[in-house]
Amino acid sequence: NINAQRIWNTLMEMGEIGATEAGGSCRLALTELDRQGRDLFVQWCRDAGCEIGIDRIGNIYARRPGTDPDALPISTGSHLDTQPTGGKFDGIYGCLAGLEVIRTLNDEGIETRRPVEVVIWTNEEGSRFAPAMVASGVYSGKFTLDYALNQTDAQGIRLGDALKTIGYDGDIEVGARRFAKFFELHIEQGPVLEREDEEVGVVTGVLGMRWYDVKVKGVSAHAGPTPMSYRKDALGAAARMITAMIDLASERADEDGRCTVGELHIPKGSRNVIPGDLNFTLDLRNATLDGLEAIERDAMALIDRIAAETGVEVAVERIWDSPPIAFDAECVAAVEKVVAKSGYSYRRMTSGAGHDAVNISQVAPTSMIFVPSVGGISHNEAEYSTPEQIAAGAQILFEVMRDEALA
Amino acid sequence: NINAQRIWNTLMEMGEIGATEAGGSCRLALTELDRQGRDLFVQWCRDAGCEIGIDRIGNIYARRPGTDPDALPISTGSHLDTQPTGGKFDGIYGCLAGLEVIRTLNDEGIETRRPVEVVIWTNEEGSRFAPAMVASGVYSGKFTLDYALNQTDAQGIRLGDALKTIGYDGDIEVGARRFAKFFELHIEQGPVLEREDEEVGVVTGVLGMRWYDVKVKGVSAHAGPTPMSYRKDALGAAARMITAMIDLASERADEDGRCTVGELHIPKGSRNVIPGDLNFTLDLRNATLDGLEAIERDAMALIDRIAAETGVEVAVERIWDSPPIAFDAECVAAVEKVVAKSGYSYRRMTSGAGHDAVNISQVAPTSMIFVPSVGGISHNEAEYSTPEQIAAGAQILFEVMRDEALA
Ligand SMILES: NC(=O)NCCC(=O)O
Ligand SMILES: NC(=O)NCCC(=O)O
Repeated sequence: NINAQRIWNTLMEMGEIGATEAGGSCRLALTELDRQGRDLFVQWCRDAGCEIGIDRIGNIYARRPGTDPDALPISTGSHLDTQPTGGKFDGIYGCLAGLEVIRTLNDEGIETRRPVEVVIWTNEEGSRFAPAMVASGVYSGKFTLDYALNQTDAQGIRLGDALKTIGYDGDIEVGARRFAKFFELHIEQGPVLEREDEEVGVVTGVLGMRWYDVKVKGVSAHAGPTPMSYRKDALGAAARMITAMIDLASERADEDGRCTVGELHIPKGSRNVIPGDLNFTLDLRNATLDGLEAIERDAMALIDRIAAETGVEVAVERIWDSPPIAFDAECVAAVEKVVAKSGYSYRRMTSGAGHDAVNISQVAPTSMIFVPSVGGISHNEAEYSTPEQIAAGAQILFEVMRDEALA
Repeated sequence: NINAQRIWNTLMEMGEIGATEAGGSCRLALTELDRQGRDLFVQWCRDAGCEIGIDRIGNIYARRPGTDPDALPISTGSHLDTQPTGGKFDGIYGCLAGLEVIRTLNDEGIETRRPVEVVIWTNEEGSRFAPAMVASGVYSGKFTLDYALNQTDAQGIRLGDALKTIGYDGDIEVGARRFAKFFELHIEQGPVLEREDEEVGVVTGVLGMRWYDVKVKGVSAHAGPTPMSYRKDALGAAARMITAMIDLASERADEDGRCTVGELHIPKGSRNVIPGDLNFTLDLRNATLDGLEAIERDAMALIDRIAAETGVEVAVERIWDSPPIAFDAECVAAVEKVVAKSGYSYRRMTSGAGHDAVNISQVAPTSMIFVPSVGGISHNEAEYSTPEQIAAGAQILFEVMRDEALA
């Protein structure tokens, strides 16, 4: 069995690097603090007898060798980078649970046929360098290495240069290290497991998601002398669009329809001026490709209808498209078998958030394991899972990886 | 008759001070550019034989003496300060039309019993120093002089210090200079006259207006893993509130009900985060006090209802309250008589915007005259009225003031 106290302490120790006053962590990708976090992780892995490999985008592969020199590894992993005001769990948990698996195999003196490996994926969050999950994207062939290395942060620093600065520009070809299977353990980042009182989520897939930028152009005019019927109010129109799209997603609850407008900006807003221009972001998600197509079609139709009714012009640009993913049936079954035997309560579920595992699933049999997030809170310094929840997930991961690596 | 070319040239010459590339003007209150505008105005008035007085809040009184030393003046005026990206007409027109009245009286050699006076009100726009119309507010006893002098701009500069810096801190007691009657000529700043093809507006009063700050507090959460039914989406709630309040005002069109949300801000907005906190401004207007009370009551009720339905908390603060104003019946009749005789098409109308005349109406018989704004555009560098429209308003003002000053 895994050591519950040890994995908790390991998480808390990692959380000290970039610790924020409100109890979270700030370790933006490829900063000095990210380097310190990586160095600590690498040291812990070396101490546990792992061989360390680093590829050209800075992904770290920590391997506990197996007895069969030709066997591909059973791999796990996640990311060590955080949001600017992130928590101590998102990503980090999956990395350190992998380390806990290796430590437990050592404690129990278990030799496996296949190597057991923990991977740290560079820049998952996308907070410093867009896009998110870029290094697992290069690994899976979604992005070229050049594309990723040339992304720049808000200060204009290239990802490739930041990588060199912290000394994590390795020489392994990205994608050269293959996996027999890949399992990612993560906090849920949502409220479902907690509300439904389940201890573990067996993740069968990931929602499809599309991101859009929407620009609304009305006519800016003085709030006082302009009668309602003369107005082309960009915010009035956007408010109707947002309301209708939220209703649309709510009606599609059975297919995990989701609609979020996270940013809305009125560039020259003034208290007594009818907004003439604004822009907002739109994030649509759905469990099925048909559902995603349908929600997009309906959303675009209602945007056009409301624009016509309110006299504004609207321009919508789709800037990201990630189709729904079904994880490998055998990997899902392997997790479910262990969870069912463990006595932990669980449910099969779909991940609403994107993860590195989405990219890996394109090139290796993959699935994920979730543990509850207290209050459903994530991307927030208040992000929390209890020591018992943390231990439960690590124990499941341990048993899954051990069984797979022995086979 | 007034000289149409002269007033147009005078307006254009004043517009050169702080001219913007897009054809507007930027002369924020009590800046060096405002000083240049004031100096030019004062020079023109002295050249036209006026006596200049300046009060302790920087209001300028340019007086053409009458024959009766005991008679109070017939006064007009407006403001020379502009919005940051303002036009050449808002306020300035009323000041320079007053000068044109005096120049025309001189040209025609008319001696009046009462003095004829043009007043420049300091800081009408409120763009640099809040609140708007502050100096006419001190004049009418709404604000104390100390209150006004201690207002600060975004750089922390006191209004009183800025006034001293540009040398317009006069020594006349504010409010000591009384008026027999006060007429303000202004551009409409809205679309009504143009759309209804009327040349002049006889302004009978000003809408009541109330300003509010609204804060909405939901729960910030990750857009992906949070099902619609679990959300407390601050923007989703605000969008419903804004939609419903706009509908409310539209239903009250017959009493000039108006609702504007000009600013909406999501402090930590992020594309894949459900907004947990936001604030927006609210501007409600109505022609009657009962109507204003009713629209406020209905708006507050629907805000509370939607907050309850969407699970968010809401806090509303009323930060400004300006009741509906009915202008002096005799002043309105005097304007209407002249307009009707002139042959210009006209309509009686209510001003949707606040003006210095609202404050003056509390202490002297007052009314206003409007000319059309092309496209209804104002507070914008594209603000425009044609030379013919500019001449028409000045001609009406001339006849009204001449008749009143002779009487
Ligand atoms: N886990 C996570 O935050 N991924 C970012 C992409 C998304 O919004 O789902
Ligand atoms: N004329 C003008 O812009 N007044 C400011 C107050 C208002 O919003 O009506």
